[in-house]
Amino acid sequence: MLKLYIGNKNYSSWSMRPWVLLKQAGIPFEEVKLRFDSFDANSSFKEKIGRVSPAGKVPALDDGGFVVWDSLAIAEYLAERFPGKNLWPQSVPARARARSVCAEMHSGFGALRSACPMNIEADLQEAGQLIWRDKPAVRADVQRLVAMWSELLAEHQGPRTAADAPSGDRETKSTGGARFLFGDFSIADAFFAPVCMRLKSYALPVPAEITAYIQRLNALPGVKAWVDDALAENDFRDFEEPYRIKR
Amino acid sequence: MLKLYIGNKNYSSWSMRPWVLLKQAGIPFEEVKLRFDSFDANSSFKEKIGRVSPAGKVPALDDGGFVVWDSLAIAEYLAERFPGKNLWPQSVPARARARSVCAEMHSGFGALRSACPMNIEADLQEAGQLIWRDKPAVRADVQRLVAMWSELLAEHQGPRTAADAPSGDRETKSTGGARFLFGDFSIADAFFAPVCMRLKSYALPVPAEITAYIQRLNALPGVKAWVDDALAENDFRDFEEPYRIKR
Ligand SMILES: N[C@@H](CCC(=O)N[C@@H](CS)C(=O)NCC(=O)O)C(=O)O
Ligand SMILES: N[C@@H](CCC(=O)N[C@@H](CS)C(=O)NCC(=O)O)C(=O)O
Repeated sequence: MLKLYIGNKNYSSWSMRPWVLLKQAGIPFEEVKLRFDSFDANSSFKEKIGRVSPAGKVPALDDGGFVVWDSLAIAEYLAERFPGKNLWPQSVPARARARSVCAEMHSGFGALRSACPMNIEADLQEAGQLIWRDKPAVRADVQRLVAMWSELLAEHQGPRTAADAPSGDRETKSTGGARFLFGDFSIADAFFAPVCMRLKSYALPVPAEITAYIQRLNALPGVKAWVDDALAENDFRDFEEPYRIKR
Repeated sequence: MLKLYIGNKNYSSWSMRPWVLLKQAGIPFEEVKLRFDSFDANSSFKEKIGRVSPAGKVPALDDGGFVVWDSLAIAEYLAERFPGKNLWPQSVPARARARSVCAEMHSGFGALRSACPMNIEADLQEAGQLIWRDKPAVRADVQRLVAMWSELLAEHQGPRTAADAPSGDRETKSTGGARFLFGDFSIADAFFAPVCMRLKSYALPVPAEITAYIQRLNALPGVKAWVDDALAENDFRDFEEPYRIKR
């Protein structure tokens, strides 16, 4: 059985990606949560994850004793290991674009990431307003996300809204418009799920079609399961809370 | 013909990766260099790259009008497009580890990256000594690189030194020890090439087997070609030069 090592669900944005991907794809796995105490070299978290992954970070995937680390490498590994699940889009160009946006996310958006750490259960609207007012680099990051998603959603709303939709919800689909970034849910959506959480908690302003995408993503069973667990976690960690002194 | 958009060869660490990969694999491509003037929104560089890539950064690969951006996505695209070139290691576990280290590089090593921007032709030993003395996060990044490479080089020195080596250089190989991170040159080595440049320019202290790996990498025709071009570039850019006021 696959074993996925993760951090706190409320805070660990990198852990969220492969977890949501596995869950949403219906691939069975065992979750091993390593609670964040701190990221100091002698913390219990670092000591435990250090025994599993040479990079000393979550997520890490253990497949029968073989360990893959880093959320993007884990996603690639799962795509190869479960080809029938179509974790990446199937056409060569769509797959290349999906990899482009995931790799761009993986190495970029530093301003948004550092100003707005993921914190699913917190209402950080006021912090969000100050960040939005004072940090042009955060606004630029969000602007790039909005441009990227809008373009992809506009392109992928065609086919699936009509003939491809399972009968029954055909009507909803045909009026509802675009679905996920590459039509069906893929690694790309799993990769942007943590950013969707941030946009929501900090209430950063985005156009209506982006809010609608975030809502569709939140309604996916795999995403909802993670969010529900995060909300139930009740594990306030100072070092992950630049904007609150308590819950 | 593939077209690769890159930045200044002396400075553009991200551009170096796919360029070296293509060159070393013997895949023909046309290089389009977009000189860095600045990264301001209204710079000539940003204006030009903005017409090619939605992310507005180099490298970008144009394959007959279809554009893939981000060095990691470009590497994956090339691996799929030229399967005979074995750009990734061939076994499933080796490939998964290669992706783990590349993805770790892609999203990490922020301290080393920001303190030691790539600058191939500069001798930055003195800056390097101060950085090494004053920045524990840089030391931690280098320590992780050394651990990662040492482990991989130790593992991959076996087979290739004996039977696999082309006759003629069998003797050199069998005394010379490890070759590249996964035996033969792969995407992983292309990904770490810019970091090797930094370790060298800033003269950061690393063990002998790492210095030897950096030397082997520098001796590869694909790497040497990039370095030669960088040395001949003669294009001093203030905003890429935190440690010098002129050449
Ligand atoms: N690029 C890695 C990043 C993983 C990462 O930074 N994880 C955080 C928790 S969300 C961590 O384990 N940090 C520990 C540390 O920085 O020492 C990935 O995609 O998996
Ligand atoms: N993750 C990207 C990063 C590319 C990148 O940051 N490139 C730099 C030049 S080395 C750039 O174009 N910067 C322009 C900017 O930041 O606006 C990749 O791997 O290709």
